[in-house]
Amino acid sequence: MAGSTFGTIFQVTTWGESHGKALGVVIDGCPAGLTLSEADIQQYLDRRKPGTSSISTPRREDDTVEILSGVFEGLTTGAPISLMVRNTSQRSADYSEIAGYYRPGHADYTFDAKYGFRDYRGGGRSSGRETIGRVAAGAVAAKILKQLGISVCAYTRSIGPVEIDMAHFDREAILATPTAMPDYTADKAAVSCLEEAKKNLDSLGGCMECIVEGLPAGIGDPVFEKLDANLAKAIMSIGAVKAVEIGEGCTVSLRKGSQNNDAFRMADGQITKATNHAGGILGGISDGGILRIRAHVKPTPSIFLTQQTVNKNGEETDVNIKGRHDPVIVPRAVVVMECMTALTVLDAMLLNMSARLDPIKAFYAAAETV
Amino acid sequence: MAGSTFGTIFQVTTWGESHGKALGVVIDGCPAGLTLSEADIQQYLDRRKPGTSSISTPRREDDTVEILSGVFEGLTTGAPISLMVRNTSQRSADYSEIAGYYRPGHADYTFDAKYGFRDYRGGGRSSGRETIGRVAAGAVAAKILKQLGISVCAYTRSIGPVEIDMAHFDREAILATPTAMPDYTADKAAVSCLEEAKKNLDSLGGCMECIVEGLPAGIGDPVFEKLDANLAKAIMSIGAVKAVEIGEGCTVSLRKGSQNNDAFRMADGQITKATNHAGGILGGISDGGILRIRAHVKPTPSIFLTQQTVNKNGEETDVNIKGRHDPVIVPRAVVVMECMTALTVLDAMLLNMSARLDPIKAFYAAAETV
Amino acid sequence: MAGSTFGTIFQVTTWGESHGKALGVVIDGCPAGLTLSEADIQQYLDRRKPGTSSISTPRREDDTVEILSGVFEGLTTGAPISLMVRNTSQRSADYSEIAGYYRPGHADYTFDAKYGFRDYRGGGRSSGRETIGRVAAGAVAAKILKQLGISVCAYTRSIGPVEIDMAHFDREAILATPTAMPDYTADKAAVSCLEEAKKNLDSLGGCMECIVEGLPAGIGDPVFEKLDANLAKAIMSIGAVKAVEIGEGCTVSLRKGSQNNDAFRMADGQITKATNHAGGILGGISDGGILRIRAHVKPTPSIFLTQQTVNKNGEETDVNIKGRHDPVIVPRAVVVMECMTALTVLDAMLLNMSARLDPIKAFYAAAETV
Amino acid sequence: MAGSTFGTIFQVTTWGESHGKALGVVIDGCPAGLTLSEADIQQYLDRRKPGTSSISTPRREDDTVEILSGVFEGLTTGAPISLMVRNTSQRSADYSEIAGYYRPGHADYTFDAKYGFRDYRGGGRSSGRETIGRVAAGAVAAKILKQLGISVCAYTRSIGPVEIDMAHFDREAILATPTAMPDYTADKAAVSCLEEAKKNLDSLGGCMECIVEGLPAGIGDPVFEKLDANLAKAIMSIGAVKAVEIGEGCTVSLRKGSQNNDAFRMADGQITKATNHAGGILGGISDGGILRIRAHVKPTPSIFLTQQTVNKNGEETDVNIKGRHDPVIVPRAVVVMECMTALTVLDAMLLNMSARLDPIKAFYAAAETV
Repeated sequence: MAGSTFGTIFQVTTWGESHGKALGVVIDGCPAGLTLSEADIQQYLDRRKPGTSSISTPRREDDTVEILSGVFEGLTTGAPISLMVRNTSQRSADYSEIAGYYRPGHADYTFDAKYGFRDYRGGGRSSGRETIGRVAAGAVAAKILKQLGISVCAYTRSIGPVEIDMAHFDREAILATPTAMPDYTADKAAVSCLEEAKKNLDSLGGCMECIVEGLPAGIGDPVFEKLDANLAKAIMSIGAVKAVEIGEGCTVSLRKGSQNNDAFRMADGQITKATNHAGGILGGISDGGILRIRAHVKPTPSIFLTQQTVNKNGEETDVNIKGRHDPVIVPRAVVVMECMTALTVLDAMLLNMSARLDPIKAFYAAAETV
Repeated sequence: MAGSTFGTIFQVTTWGESHGKALGVVIDGCPAGLTLSEADIQQYLDRRKPGTSSISTPRREDDTVEILSGVFEGLTTGAPISLMVRNTSQRSADYSEIAGYYRPGHADYTFDAKYGFRDYRGGGRSSGRETIGRVAAGAVAAKILKQLGISVCAYTRSIGPVEIDMAHFDREAILATPTAMPDYTADKAAVSCLEEAKKNLDSLGGCMECIVEGLPAGIGDPVFEKLDANLAKAIMSIGAVKAVEIGEGCTVSLRKGSQNNDAFRMADGQITKATNHAGGILGGISDGGILRIRAHVKPTPSIFLTQQTVNKNGEETDVNIKGRHDPVIVPRAVVVMECMTALTVLDAMLLNMSARLDPIKAFYAAAETV
Repeated sequence: MAGSTFGTIFQVTTWGESHGKALGVVIDGCPAGLTLSEADIQQYLDRRKPGTSSISTPRREDDTVEILSGVFEGLTTGAPISLMVRNTSQRSADYSEIAGYYRPGHADYTFDAKYGFRDYRGGGRSSGRETIGRVAAGAVAAKILKQLGISVCAYTRSIGPVEIDMAHFDREAILATPTAMPDYTADKAAVSCLEEAKKNLDSLGGCMECIVEGLPAGIGDPVFEKLDANLAKAIMSIGAVKAVEIGEGCTVSLRKGSQNNDAFRMADGQITKATNHAGGILGGISDGGILRIRAHVKPTPSIFLTQQTVNKNGEETDVNIKGRHDPVIVPRAVVVMECMTALTVLDAMLLNMSARLDPIKAFYAAAETV
Repeated sequence: MAGSTFGTIFQVTTWGESHGKALGVVIDGCPAGLTLSEADIQQYLDRRKPGTSSISTPRREDDTVEILSGVFEGLTTGAPISLMVRNTSQRSADYSEIAGYYRPGHADYTFDAKYGFRDYRGGGRSSGRETIGRVAAGAVAAKILKQLGISVCAYTRSIGPVEIDMAHFDREAILATPTAMPDYTADKAAVSCLEEAKKNLDSLGGCMECIVEGLPAGIGDPVFEKLDANLAKAIMSIGAVKAVEIGEGCTVSLRKGSQNNDAFRMADGQITKATNHAGGILGGISDGGILRIRAHVKPTPSIFLTQQTVNKNGEETDVNIKGRHDPVIVPRAVVVMECMTALTVLDAMLLNMSARLDPIKAFYAAAETV
């Protein structure tokens, strides 16, 4: 397996290249009986669509999704759901030149090292467009989670030096701003930083965060399949992510136990925690608190400044990258983080159903026969 | 699956609880023909053994490993290698009391939430002793990697406020110091911080780092099975780790593309990089540079200060934890990080053998018949 | 996972329903560097195409395959290969009636029992058309095997009472006859039996066989992943197959050890066997002999005789099935058996590359760097 | 993976060789809350224990199982259950001689071909003793199934020419007779055949059958993970099995559709089938009828007649096998078939819990919080 499949029960397999005929995903293991239409998926794809603001690539793609299987009379049947998006704006010409050398910060060299050659058009399989399949599948997972009372929400936390002010957190702003920041003031500041960076033919990095609300305690497994371990894999598998933090993340290395432990308390007859330094996970299993995951994203490697590199003949050379590139990756990666989180959490919940014997007995005792 | 299995080809399954009869691991998929003895494994287990310094729990365990299968006349046969360590120092009495309440920062509550009850003796399955199986298996993986010219080395980077000085990096110190720091000066400072913390009935967090040298370019897969994604999962699956960084990690969110890209250069006819901000991975695939992974570890949750919590009857209560606990987790977790990294890298290398058609043809053309 | 994925390294995921928009397969883990075109796949799909003879359903489908990803400039890139076939001849009207009752011998009832409802059009996911994805993927696997010197060949062994005469085995006849029998005389006899059965509004069962030549010794694993165990699963997963035999198969239960053991002999310096009762597999691992697998296929359950059944309201009723159905399943299932065998054998060969340490060392010592 | 792991959710990993220190199994994914003791497992192991009759090897092994983890205060905890049986009667001397040549009908040659050498003592990993782990794990699966109202029962159907008479089916006889036949008369006849075979230094084959009662409709998946496909793999993975049949099995190839279809009928308000030619599975999914699986087992390859073979130097030679061997494999394989069936059915039931959305919602709505 070349690793294009994610998940154990709710299993998704993505395919497609930036400049191929199409991209898509097959969802296998989606429970039967979910109301599903293209519109449910399209609204998520539109959030990662390019060309929607001054700080995003001018490449225009409608990225219209088509459901090819697995849905009958508006309901999922339990059969694989095949989703496809046709590529419409391939300007391969932009890329023919890069066939010959290795772009710094890109996977050009490592693909050649692994496979002996590569589809160099727009990054081929390592293009950001690969995430179309992840987002399409994540939209389905998120819809199921919503019906289980669980919401997943990702947003931009910082771009370059500009960080959001949690005191001004405004969830609406996430979809309303070009930066996907939940803070209109920070958004404005970030946009001007980005325009400055563009003027300098450079790019910026940033940080995104995802929170999961409503997740019951007890989800995840204690050893290798810890919920935080699977979230770390899911998020780190998004191109350009270089660090993943859970709860207090990196800062725990500077804390004392007395500062970092979350005291358990009672609230309206429920066990709760006075604080949530743990980010909602203890020992790899959800504790009923809000999940909090943070990811740090490198600046767009495609910059227009002249850079040093090497060509396929092993000669040193300078490169001037052409094509259409965002000056920052984060805003369009936010929905990908949200979707990878949804896929991870849903899969863990489905696996969790066989954790205890009594509920299994109850399940089969209640099983309707047709 | 309750998630006690790790790896696709070199597959390890750990078992055992802190105060059960024994702990162990089954390695399935180890190539035949490796010279292997208990001594190869014991030297790794000794690195995580408790009771070896003033800053480690006084619990005494020899943790002597026994090879039960898979090795014949000193060589691995290709059959599963079953490794077992008997528990010898179970003082369950220490723990009978904690059966009734939930220790802050521990998995007591989440285990009850998931399974309905738990083996409360010393954390049961969520005890640090679970890592015995990981380390035993990792020792075998590391031995194979060494024969492939690859070295894996983890060490403590910081404890509380004390960070190592890379200018004084001394690899020998890693095994010689109680902190597993590659810097004798930092070690001394860290030890006194820890003794201070102990005096205050508190604990400290820290940071550990792992580097992999000699890894060829081309290892890892481009999408969900990115090498960095699998490393993130492997390391985040170590109890108490709350953040994982690759290369520049979190700092990339503050950099510009022009600062973060690594220029490709030629050196003695080989493609190399002028810098290694990427930490040896581009697009999820190794680039021939040194792998650099960092993990942030929370302070030991078992502190001797009085803490607030809740008991199984849903009553708020204060707890005073007894038992034997390290004031810091990092020094003994370092070898676990090294082993999880070795397991991840080896598995990726074995999977990589089928990436290209021509080497597969060559493999079978060369296949010896008996 | 709803079980639409097959294989560990060469991993295929099929999707699509009989009367949906399209059917297809995603191949993940295909080695890079294979020359591949639609024509390579189409010739296999044409072998399962309906409407090509008097004994096959009159449903007309071109079943034209489209490569959507994973191939660049005529070569596989190592990225997932997405293959799609559009449905063109949906006459759902034929099926609207069967929505209400359960056809004997079909999966109508079990789908409702599992999922609560079903896509009833032409059997939906349980239609024979699901095998389009298997055949498309198997064509790719077979092309790789051929380059490794391995041939896979399936054919019809019997239809109803008519069995082929091995003395008249003629490989060309497999593709030339409507029955896929390697024996023109038996084919004629079988066709008249089938026409008789059609006249009686009934259907016939049959037996198919697959042989694999050129497979080296040492392929397969000793315990749960025995080569014969995976072949049994692969073949039994073809709808309508009710029995799988390896080598002498069922007859071994009537033999003595002295009759059933295959003596090892030397021939031109190679170890060989005097006989091949084992069918080329000993202890789950290939022994260098010809693999021989047999499968017994039930008669087409869709017959035009009046049958007794039950409807969704739990009322007993008689049914008269309409639509377009073959009087026998075997001839079109032969290519499916060939493809499932190719997928199983190739996957086992790729997994086998990490069985021994020395070849792994040699592999990485020889690894080209770009 | 060398294929020593079986199952997706209820996952078992076996280890150990015939003449190593011990054999065992790790069960990962066993639901928490099952009452479990060594006695539950021992009664199954005793059924496969050697040396209990005139027709079984005189090798004496107590095969006493030890639970090393995963059970606390008599209940499974959800953690891996490690089970071990120490080898006590190793007479390796018997086998030192066979190191040099390849026994006909055994895996000696194929192990050497795959791994380059082998643990030749008593067949090493390919010994029948490997099934100890399967039986120990199967005993746990069977206990869970029993609590779900499902019984699994295997027995000997024939040995050599002697077949049981279904009219005299007596379930008690299965455990009471040396042949595991449910028919005392057939048992006597079979025993004398076996004594005859022993006198002739030869061995016999046979057939075993397994039935599963109480399984609800809807278990299994429609494509590659068909219930019958997984049963075929599970049973074919038992050494010496050469054919697997479901329901009418091989005979379907000679039937007409009108003879083979099972009519659906109503009985006490339940959907049922007038006949059960399908063996309880339609389209890969259970139909509520009795599962019926048959397996054909080759005669013991270790016979005492002189046989022709080849030695490691590639010289032809005659061999006279020594050691302790049953004249027939079936009676001791019956419990293995029963256990592999239990493991397969339980795993399918656990996977099935996420097939529909509504029961998932109900499950989480009802989820107890601690």
